[in-house]
Amino acid sequence: MIDHELQATTEPGRRFVAMAEEHAKDFATRADQHDREASFPFENIKALQESGFLAAMIPEEFGGLGVESRLDQMIGMSRLARGCASSAIAANMHIAATGVMSRMWRWREGQPPQITSAVEALMRAIGARQLITCAPGTEAGTDLQSPMTEGVPDGDHYIVNGRKMFGTLSPAAQLMFVTFRIPDGDGYQSSMGIIPSGAPGVTNKNNWDAMGMRASGSHDIVFENVRIPAASVLPPRPWGVFDGSGADMGVALNGSLVACFLGIAEAARNLAIEMTGRRKGPKGMRLADRAPIQQLIAEIEVELMAGRAVVERAGRISDEYFDQYRLGEAPNDVSFALMKEQQCMKWTLQRNAISIVDKAMTATGGSAYMNGSPFSRLYRDVRAGPFMQPFAPYEALEFIGKFTLGLDPAPDR
Amino acid sequence: MIDHELQATTEPGRRFVAMAEEHAKDFATRADQHDREASFPFENIKALQESGFLAAMIPEEFGGLGVESRLDQMIGMSRLARGCASSAIAANMHIAATGVMSRMWRWREGQPPQITSAVEALMRAIGARQLITCAPGTEAGTDLQSPMTEGVPDGDHYIVNGRKMFGTLSPAAQLMFVTFRIPDGDGYQSSMGIIPSGAPGVTNKNNWDAMGMRASGSHDIVFENVRIPAASVLPPRPWGVFDGSGADMGVALNGSLVACFLGIAEAARNLAIEMTGRRKGPKGMRLADRAPIQQLIAEIEVELMAGRAVVERAGRISDEYFDQYRLGEAPNDVSFALMKEQQCMKWTLQRNAISIVDKAMTATGGSAYMNGSPFSRLYRDVRAGPFMQPFAPYEALEFIGKFTLGLDPAPDR
Amino acid sequence: MIDHELQATTEPGRRFVAMAEEHAKDFATRADQHDREASFPFENIKALQESGFLAAMIPEEFGGLGVESRLDQMIGMSRLARGCASSAIAANMHIAATGVMSRMWRWREGQPPQITSAVEALMRAIGARQLITCAPGTEAGTDLQSPMTEGVPDGDHYIVNGRKMFGTLSPAAQLMFVTFRIPDGDGYQSSMGIIPSGAPGVTNKNNWDAMGMRASGSHDIVFENVRIPAASVLPPRPWGVFDGSGADMGVALNGSLVACFLGIAEAARNLAIEMTGRRKGPKGMRLADRAPIQQLIAEIEVELMAGRAVVERAGRISDEYFDQYRLGEAPNDVSFALMKEQQCMKWTLQRNAISIVDKAMTATGGSAYMNGSPFSRLYRDVRAGPFMQPFAPYEALEFIGKFTLGLDPAPDR
Amino acid sequence: MIDHELQATTEPGRRFVAMAEEHAKDFATRADQHDREASFPFENIKALQESGFLAAMIPEEFGGLGVESRLDQMIGMSRLARGCASSAIAANMHIAATGVMSRMWRWREGQPPQITSAVEALMRAIGARQLITCAPGTEAGTDLQSPMTEGVPDGDHYIVNGRKMFGTLSPAAQLMFVTFRIPDGDGYQSSMGIIPSGAPGVTNKNNWDAMGMRASGSHDIVFENVRIPAASVLPPRPWGVFDGSGADMGVALNGSLVACFLGIAEAARNLAIEMTGRRKGPKGMRLADRAPIQQLIAEIEVELMAGRAVVERAGRISDEYFDQYRLGEAPNDVSFALMKEQQCMKWTLQRNAISIVDKAMTATGGSAYMNGSPFSRLYRDVRAGPFMQPFAPYEALEFIGKFTLGLDPAPDR
Repeated sequence: MIDHELQATTEPGRRFVAMAEEHAKDFATRADQHDREASFPFENIKALQESGFLAAMIPEEFGGLGVESRLDQMIGMSRLARGCASSAIAANMHIAATGVMSRMWRWREGQPPQITSAVEALMRAIGARQLITCAPGTEAGTDLQSPMTEGVPDGDHYIVNGRKMFGTLSPAAQLMFVTFRIPDGDGYQSSMGIIPSGAPGVTNKNNWDAMGMRASGSHDIVFENVRIPAASVLPPRPWGVFDGSGADMGVALNGSLVACFLGIAEAARNLAIEMTGRRKGPKGMRLADRAPIQQLIAEIEVELMAGRAVVERAGRISDEYFDQYRLGEAPNDVSFALMKEQQCMKWTLQRNAISIVDKAMTATGGSAYMNGSPFSRLYRDVRAGPFMQPFAPYEALEFIGKFTLGLDPAPDR
Repeated sequence: MIDHELQATTEPGRRFVAMAEEHAKDFATRADQHDREASFPFENIKALQESGFLAAMIPEEFGGLGVESRLDQMIGMSRLARGCASSAIAANMHIAATGVMSRMWRWREGQPPQITSAVEALMRAIGARQLITCAPGTEAGTDLQSPMTEGVPDGDHYIVNGRKMFGTLSPAAQLMFVTFRIPDGDGYQSSMGIIPSGAPGVTNKNNWDAMGMRASGSHDIVFENVRIPAASVLPPRPWGVFDGSGADMGVALNGSLVACFLGIAEAARNLAIEMTGRRKGPKGMRLADRAPIQQLIAEIEVELMAGRAVVERAGRISDEYFDQYRLGEAPNDVSFALMKEQQCMKWTLQRNAISIVDKAMTATGGSAYMNGSPFSRLYRDVRAGPFMQPFAPYEALEFIGKFTLGLDPAPDR
Repeated sequence: MIDHELQATTEPGRRFVAMAEEHAKDFATRADQHDREASFPFENIKALQESGFLAAMIPEEFGGLGVESRLDQMIGMSRLARGCASSAIAANMHIAATGVMSRMWRWREGQPPQITSAVEALMRAIGARQLITCAPGTEAGTDLQSPMTEGVPDGDHYIVNGRKMFGTLSPAAQLMFVTFRIPDGDGYQSSMGIIPSGAPGVTNKNNWDAMGMRASGSHDIVFENVRIPAASVLPPRPWGVFDGSGADMGVALNGSLVACFLGIAEAARNLAIEMTGRRKGPKGMRLADRAPIQQLIAEIEVELMAGRAVVERAGRISDEYFDQYRLGEAPNDVSFALMKEQQCMKWTLQRNAISIVDKAMTATGGSAYMNGSPFSRLYRDVRAGPFMQPFAPYEALEFIGKFTLGLDPAPDR
Repeated sequence: MIDHELQATTEPGRRFVAMAEEHAKDFATRADQHDREASFPFENIKALQESGFLAAMIPEEFGGLGVESRLDQMIGMSRLARGCASSAIAANMHIAATGVMSRMWRWREGQPPQITSAVEALMRAIGARQLITCAPGTEAGTDLQSPMTEGVPDGDHYIVNGRKMFGTLSPAAQLMFVTFRIPDGDGYQSSMGIIPSGAPGVTNKNNWDAMGMRASGSHDIVFENVRIPAASVLPPRPWGVFDGSGADMGVALNGSLVACFLGIAEAARNLAIEMTGRRKGPKGMRLADRAPIQQLIAEIEVELMAGRAVVERAGRISDEYFDQYRLGEAPNDVSFALMKEQQCMKWTLQRNAISIVDKAMTATGGSAYMNGSPFSRLYRDVRAGPFMQPFAPYEALEFIGKFTLGLDPAPDR
């Protein structure tokens, strides 16, 4: 069967995708074991670093692959996720951040020089395969715009206290990008600082124990009186406000994360095709030869085609946007329109991916329910999708609906 | 909120349901731990035996509760599953068999006397809370009508060899009802024999390790030259044939099994209502006060109402059928029409139950993805539903479609 | 094929359903023509009056059939709708009102004597087959609780002005039950009066021209300075308030209306079975012999079974409620819980009915798209379902969600 | 609101889309009337001819717009359908044929010279705005590969007899492309001939009376002893065989037809946004301000985004295919893979379009059910989608499933 899978649109993108396929093949051999043990795949992350995969978005001049297309980034991440979704979302935590860095570098004209040089330093280290970063942003009971983690100025330093969840990739990261609020009169401002994982007061709770994505190392991180220089803190922005600049950052950071779930769907579908072509019933008939199985496989294909299509479309629109605007500088409506496309993509893709895994299990039969089957992992991994930031599915609808109707799209939460 | 949950239709049924609710409350306290450890809940099964719950379908004269309504049986099992679905499907394995026994007792006139007395003996032991049974019927690569396990006559005994899967409740069962084929010329006949769990040659592989229903003890059971008296073997029937008598036995054994998944859905929904009424967002707004959450909860209620309705309807039709016909003696079309209602019930109920758990997780947020949350268990348990015998979902459609169109409804497999 | 269609639960109900089947057979022969012409089926309504069908809910002592079960009422109306849905919803407009009357009669103890005698007079006339009524309640831009039609007291009369939509059955009705508001200080009260269709100032606009339900005569009715005696006006209630008494009246009036759409679904499904069993493809294969058609028919059956199940369940719960409570006198929560079941029924039934008609068309092929095919009518008729009062589908979700979460369930509109 | 609608990818495509938007605006003013009267919009077709729209796919050297991109063709047709879907599918009947002609011209090297010159003549006439064609292919009870219309050789002529359905655009077409079978021994061969609409023996039955697409003039065409020169008949191919060359012709002819339904969905959605932003409830609240309406609009947006995405994806893949292969000359698997993408597109798009129209009606309220509302037309028009050739939805699944599983994908019919 000829399969029109997603194709990268640039030369660096094609190299990135090819590397993803190689790594995926390797990771697949260990995915079930890491899932079973909830162990962090240090060897996978190391392999990604050594091959240059983790530096894919870094300009070639700094040692990276120079991937600029966000669509290509999404496609590559989806390919990697076919082998091990946990490893893919872990890698994405770092790669998405490097995508932001290289954008800041490309648009450095007019940017405060200390930011530019900080970005350059990070990119050099990453390009030299010496640095891995993560960005634990989520906290319990609040949203991304309203961190409760607090940074209090203390001379030319900040003292940071708080707790982050879902610190994906944290076991392997040397640096963390941490959002916090800064008390300001009766209210707060919001900012982000760079905190070394080994800084005094930082504790990785090593407590990730979820239903799926078990090898992603998404631990809680606790900050107790962590002291960081003001120079490594971004200029403050309003706290608790969802505006266009939050929207495009959300797209920048989460587009390729969402795309990983396409890879899960493709893995499930490929398994289903392979198994139904092999397994036989009591009278020797292959599953693939049974008409109802053919209908089921077709429904999978229909959903997969739509999943690929929305990734392609959202990725292309995202590429057009970021070719035109510096991060955070587009008019609100333009950023919101971009975010809307991404949320529509996420909705369709996650729903279809979940359905594809479900139907693939149905097609192959009861063995799919066993922990010895990769389907068990895929079924649990794929359900992480709808929880991905910045919006729960019902919030996504709220955002999309309000924006479409010309209202302030910030969810009422 | 007033909740029109399912109500038993007879007095014994009401006692059964009340007991189910008591046990469920108790089991719920241990469900997560058994799930985590994949440990068999011996203490639950013991409690069910001691309370008389396991003897619910046994006539009062033999020490049972005298539940005769199959609808009431289904409702009781759904209630028990709210607390621990693994325990419920384990208990059901035994209770469904007792339902068949008491039917055979009620219709004993004209039945071979040795069968009647065997049934009576089983029922007395069960009513006296001294016997637990199970019925491992599934084998890899075949269907229920075509067992590959083989029983070869040897004088007034049979020598049984083979392997069964999904031996739910097997760790606690003293006796097993085992289907096997008997060589007959070029072909086979099919029968069922009673095999003590401790008989020489019986090995419980203790190997149940599935994604969900982890506490159900659904191990493989291997039979190696197991010798059983011919007197404990039912008269043979055609092998590999799906007819009305297979259909009504399927209904008799699996109706209350399917109903357990209603209980999972109700548990998830109750959790969602409770949690969304309590949890607050960054600005202090309760989840329950957010309009999109209200829409989501409403969708759950719509699906739950339909799930309850199909159970009620299929249960009532099943009661009418079994009031009229002895097991295996209705015309094929009548049995198939009954099976069709049950398969329609299963389809709607399983689909809705899966959707309800999914939406309940969405409504309560990312913590539902943690293994510390009951939702993790519910999400994995509920997916077992579509795999339940005798038909995979696509086979159910095949059966329903063919029967409705006046064709031979046996799946082409 | 044995088809477990819905069965009436009482003897009068069974007579009612049998009559419905007879009338349906007759109406079916004219349904397409009335649809094409948008002509009102006076001869159908006359036949229903003469057979006693229209008096079904009237006690036998007044010449009716004495049907008391609301479930039976729903089943009978669904049967009638199989033949001609327009005629069924037209008849329902009258029959639902008679159901309310006979309830008021049964619970007349403690009721104001003038109301009791008015009810008795209406029932006698209806039982004698001399009176047809309708109840045009809908107005543009408002809801049922907030009529804009106004009745201004003028001595012992009211002067009524306003305009009602969806005056189903109005061409055949001699009396109309009309809700209006009564100015009261800065606000309003709400009431209902009886207005003869021929009263001065009443104009039937004869303007019903909808996509479907074209033979239902659902014209606009205009009231210009219509003078009615205060004695034919009910005691006022608060205006604009949705409470339990509105809820149970909504259930009383609309349950059997919603059930009509089950009949549409059944008609479409029966056609599909008949046609696919007859039509052949290029190689002589019957549609029914094609596996994908069998899957499609099975999906129809699954949805139909659920549709029947929710009708049965909501009808039974409604029967229990009205056996216990006088209209408008149950605690709010009890009435809302009843309404919730009805709204859940409506949601599932309407969605499934629409899907069944759609799939039946798909199964039978392109001829279903022609106006010469009954499917054209069924496709257009069935879409009326979600619009049925008192809630649009999204409002139904709002009501269900809020009630379930313990909030005031009145839609925020 | 910024709306990322589909954008043409080439300069001629952009001109084509801009023209489509102009025409759509004009056609929209008459769409409801043509629908009501089932009248053929001669003035629309004339306007499309005069503006050069009908010659869009014709090379500029012959007077056309020179649109080569099939994606652009699809986008333009979807835009036109926003105004009047009947006119769009009528225009498409001609435009799709011109697309095939210009492909034959572009790949004329090695093609029989008489075919090339016939194509050139047709294109010159069309470019000169003097010729309109149609291609009535469907017949009752058979499929496109197995025409029952028969052409019997008679010297250097063929005598054609048969009846075609769905002769869209036939009232305005001077020439028809007609498939027929040629007796050949015990069997048949299949071919296509050009028949002037006014040839002796051709009767346009003028009998199109469907539920929707009422202005498309899709009449039956009867051929009685129609005599056509052998020179205007294509070389015969096997009869009754579905292979790759049927597949790519199906894509060539039907891709932009399917895309028209995107335009219907967009029209419905635009209406819903406009109306909910304007209409108010009893307390003065706009529909757009109600949270459940916002959720509904968001669901529409999600489905619309996916609909656009699958069109974009299928169009792009189609462009790549036709850049690489001459019609009918790709390996079977390559053509089938192309057809699979198109069928996946069709499935998602048609389902989403139907759902979007449905939800748009729900959002705007009961007035959408009136014949005076454009929604009535859109609801009836959109349902034509799943019937579009070459596969019914269940056949599409059969094709997709079999191809994906490595089997002969021809539907078993």
